[in-house]
Amino acid sequence: MSDFYSKKDLNFQLFDHLQVENLSQLAYFQDHSKETFEMILDAADQIASKSLRPLLTEMDRQEPQLENGSIKIHPGMRPILKQFGQDGWINATFSYEEGGQQLPWTLHLAAGYILQAANYSASVFPFLTTGAANLIRTFGSSALVERFTPKMYAGEWQGTMALTEPDAGSSLSDISTTGYPTENPGEYRIKGQKIYISCGDHDACENIIHLMLARVEGAPAGTKGISLFVVPKFIPETGESNDVLTEGLYHKMGYKGAPIAHLMIGSNEKTIGYLVGEENMGLKYMFQMMNEARIGVGMNAVAIAQAAYQASLAYAKERPQGRKITEKDLSKPQVPIIEHADVKRMLLFQKSISEGSLALLLYASRLMDETIHEPIPDRKKEKHLLLELLTPIAKSYPSEMGVLSTSAAVQVLGGAGYTQDFPVEQYYREARIHPIHEGTTGIHGLDLLGRKIFLENGLGWKMLYQAIEKDIKSYQGPEDILLLFDQSWKKSQDTAGTILQKAQEGPEIFLADASLFLELCGVLCVGWMWLRQTHVASQMIDKENADTAFLNGKIETARYFMEYELPKIHYIAKRLHSSAYPTVNMRSYWF
Amino acid sequence: MSDFYSKKDLNFQLFDHLQVENLSQLAYFQDHSKETFEMILDAADQIASKSLRPLLTEMDRQEPQLENGSIKIHPGMRPILKQFGQDGWINATFSYEEGGQQLPWTLHLAAGYILQAANYSASVFPFLTTGAANLIRTFGSSALVERFTPKMYAGEWQGTMALTEPDAGSSLSDISTTGYPTENPGEYRIKGQKIYISCGDHDACENIIHLMLARVEGAPAGTKGISLFVVPKFIPETGESNDVLTEGLYHKMGYKGAPIAHLMIGSNEKTIGYLVGEENMGLKYMFQMMNEARIGVGMNAVAIAQAAYQASLAYAKERPQGRKITEKDLSKPQVPIIEHADVKRMLLFQKSISEGSLALLLYASRLMDETIHEPIPDRKKEKHLLLELLTPIAKSYPSEMGVLSTSAAVQVLGGAGYTQDFPVEQYYREARIHPIHEGTTGIHGLDLLGRKIFLENGLGWKMLYQAIEKDIKSYQGPEDILLLFDQSWKKSQDTAGTILQKAQEGPEIFLADASLFLELCGVLCVGWMWLRQTHVASQMIDKENADTAFLNGKIETARYFMEYELPKIHYIAKRLHSSAYPTVNMRSYWF
Repeated sequence: MSDFYSKKDLNFQLFDHLQVENLSQLAYFQDHSKETFEMILDAADQIASKSLRPLLTEMDRQEPQLENGSIKIHPGMRPILKQFGQDGWINATFSYEEGGQQLPWTLHLAAGYILQAANYSASVFPFLTTGAANLIRTFGSSALVERFTPKMYAGEWQGTMALTEPDAGSSLSDISTTGYPTENPGEYRIKGQKIYISCGDHDACENIIHLMLARVEGAPAGTKGISLFVVPKFIPETGESNDVLTEGLYHKMGYKGAPIAHLMIGSNEKTIGYLVGEENMGLKYMFQMMNEARIGVGMNAVAIAQAAYQASLAYAKERPQGRKITEKDLSKPQVPIIEHADVKRMLLFQKSISEGSLALLLYASRLMDETIHEPIPDRKKEKHLLLELLTPIAKSYPSEMGVLSTSAAVQVLGGAGYTQDFPVEQYYREARIHPIHEGTTGIHGLDLLGRKIFLENGLGWKMLYQAIEKDIKSYQGPEDILLLFDQSWKKSQDTAGTILQKAQEGPEIFLADASLFLELCGVLCVGWMWLRQTHVASQMIDKENADTAFLNGKIETARYFMEYELPKIHYIAKRLHSSAYPTVNMRSYWF
Repeated sequence: MSDFYSKKDLNFQLFDHLQVENLSQLAYFQDHSKETFEMILDAADQIASKSLRPLLTEMDRQEPQLENGSIKIHPGMRPILKQFGQDGWINATFSYEEGGQQLPWTLHLAAGYILQAANYSASVFPFLTTGAANLIRTFGSSALVERFTPKMYAGEWQGTMALTEPDAGSSLSDISTTGYPTENPGEYRIKGQKIYISCGDHDACENIIHLMLARVEGAPAGTKGISLFVVPKFIPETGESNDVLTEGLYHKMGYKGAPIAHLMIGSNEKTIGYLVGEENMGLKYMFQMMNEARIGVGMNAVAIAQAAYQASLAYAKERPQGRKITEKDLSKPQVPIIEHADVKRMLLFQKSISEGSLALLLYASRLMDETIHEPIPDRKKEKHLLLELLTPIAKSYPSEMGVLSTSAAVQVLGGAGYTQDFPVEQYYREARIHPIHEGTTGIHGLDLLGRKIFLENGLGWKMLYQAIEKDIKSYQGPEDILLLFDQSWKKSQDTAGTILQKAQEGPEIFLADASLFLELCGVLCVGWMWLRQTHVASQMIDKENADTAFLNGKIETARYFMEYELPKIHYIAKRLHSSAYPTVNMRSYWF
């Protein structure tokens, strides 16, 4: 039994709550079934437990080092990357023709959740390669596909996403790395620099394939002039250096096992980049793959929160301290701290965050699979817009709450949690990256309120409304849970109406509280997931041989969420109804 | 100019808001004046900037090491400890007869705030010595005082508080270290072990003086059988080892420069402890010094939050990224990120938390000085009970919010904040200890709701009520700020009434949400402090030569707090009015 995630919960979520086996009704997934899905999950559990987990602490303590211009990482990663390739993890979702298994993203992401919970740093490597290969196979020429993807699929070459530059972090329109056309069509000399490139250089593979954003010389300003290039570290056929130099290695607070590089491109005028698709389409291509990446980051966050929850739960069950508050007899032995209501509160908080967020992420993943393979255009559009709306929420809520959830894990252990004797302090440090990378929470707030909610006359929100209303109508389970949810749902609709009216007051005021609106939507959507899970658990609990302890736990955790977390909607709503704007009015010189 | 705290704000808080110079009207402080207070603060700024600050990063990266049973720390600490002694910091609050300066605790804690903001690890050493010496001089015999305190005051010997044991963390009643009487009166053989002892061993001083809790053999069970001992590492006169062995050194997530030791006492039956005061009075003595210690920890938390705020503010003013949301012309240069409303929101959040918490801590400190020196018994009792009520709030709110505030500092810097290139990630790691040590937040919740609020028929709450009502009545300033505060104040009173009625339902239900009630009181009290600061700033702003930028910043930050933070009272109130108790009902086997 793996102790870093709940296999029972993951099975409940996939098969009881979301019935993902029904995906096999779609032609692309027709060879799959519950059995093949279970095999995939078991295989992930094996590699996670046997290969990734044993390196969790070591990879944190023995950080990568920059030596003579190359980054050395933990030697244990090399066989792991090979194994990922050999076992078919990297291209699992791709078609049979591409050597893939036509696995749904839902299962790919669920398997990833297991790997990430085991050892987040180690899990980063193959997911980046999958993302990079996915861009090449989707938008690149067949020549590029044939030249680069097979060794990426094999786990021999690392893929990266090279977006950020020193003067262009959240503001991608300002990137200045430039591609100069050469005499060879599709080949450009690249010059510039990139920072914060995850797995941007390391010694556990033979080559690094950067999917790099850059401007073709003379391209229009802003996001419309950005192109996408394949920029390898070494020229595949010759093994010659492609003049991509590792200028620096960042030392980070957490997930130290994964190296983050600062790269100089074309310092000696020798870097060749291979254009993917057409010029000036780079950001568009990148954004078509963003939903996977962003749901992936949400999944990272929830996986770490889950691992921290499991560690603090195990401690709370074993650690004796104090007595029940009703027990005054000091000669009685101390009780495990899980008997104290405040400790149970911290555990319920974590359980409600990580299981509720996991449900939302798997819901979004299933929607992604359905969207990709939906044959009817109108339905495809509806599903797509709901997915677009849910993506910033499903990325940001688990990321922000993952910070608080791992903090609660530390608190359950008390002083022990602050020491390196237990893994929770590492989880706490690792969790802090997720509100930052793959778009900060502030950026996702703007994306949701400034863009997603208006697409196609608000079709995404309409789809969300219909989905929630449908679940409310069909709900069967404890009445108190429904009532609390329904109250907050009405308050959310009312607040959304109020905030949309503020669009008339200009973008600065309208968007000033976009992060808070995003937070409100996060609480609402995870509350919705708890309503759905309660419904499912309530149907199961009366059956013969039901796992009543597990199902009672589900329902009581839903009740916790509705009682303790959902009321945050009312506090955010109170703020969002106000017409005072201190964050707009404050002057920089008043600070 | 020190860049790790706002001197302007500290002066405003001490002299404009709290008028601490009026403390000199009390006989004990009669030699003091605004001028002597300012000299103390300048001296603290000097040692903080010149001695502590330069070691901030080094002490984090070069952790203490356990070598041959002794802990080696950063060599820079030895001269600093000497300097603390020579400059009179350690016994500054003590009487002239004791070699002290009769400095108010308010000023001692304000000076500490400066040191802590500069380098939290380094600041820990002298404050522990002060606390330990304070116990000896208050409850110990003159022989003990003469034998131990002079070298502690001189910064040559380190003091510690040795409370926690492997099976007794939050549950002090279960400590089992034992003192066996010897033929010499007042001397006991001590045997046991202590964990998590801050500065419990190091090589920057000549001796370590532990103020240790232990049971005299045969003492009553529980807290009534705990005695307090002075247990030196070396016998002062002979320099012989006192059999206090360093069994281990904890590696922690943060404040790595301060060593935390695991100690074995009397493994060779050779440890002598010297009884402080009377047998079985140890916990009572310790608790009489708790207010100072707990306000001190709150101050640590706010100092780190302040340093992180200053670091993120400086970055936000300098870092260009993106354009104003109303600017569509991409040929315009990027603007500093402080121009974005969401960045201002994160800065206002930090400013409101750290300045509001500082106000509460200094308010409580002044109340402590007034209580100690109040000659009229009835008034002393009133002040004492208000202080008792405020202490868990003033310890916990800054500690819990310090975690979120330093997290916001990381977020302002984005990816840069997650790297060791900037100090905010260190602040984030250091801030996490405060909700744990000197009583966890859960313990303080129980202390507030289970004990403090009932003392003397609720006299503490009555005093709080009177103080807030008085400030509401005399308030002159922007009406919107008063209205929002008044609304939440009424809601808080109503909620306190509701929760007190639950006492009838037995302690488990009554105290299940004690942590939330503590949080509500924290938001309320810091809101109150913002109301008071707004009143003061509003009176100052119309005067000639007023620093209008600073004062407008104060008022706008107050408005931020009332608009964004204070509504949390309504969400907590909603929960506290409920009669569903998932944290009580949840079974341990349902998790």
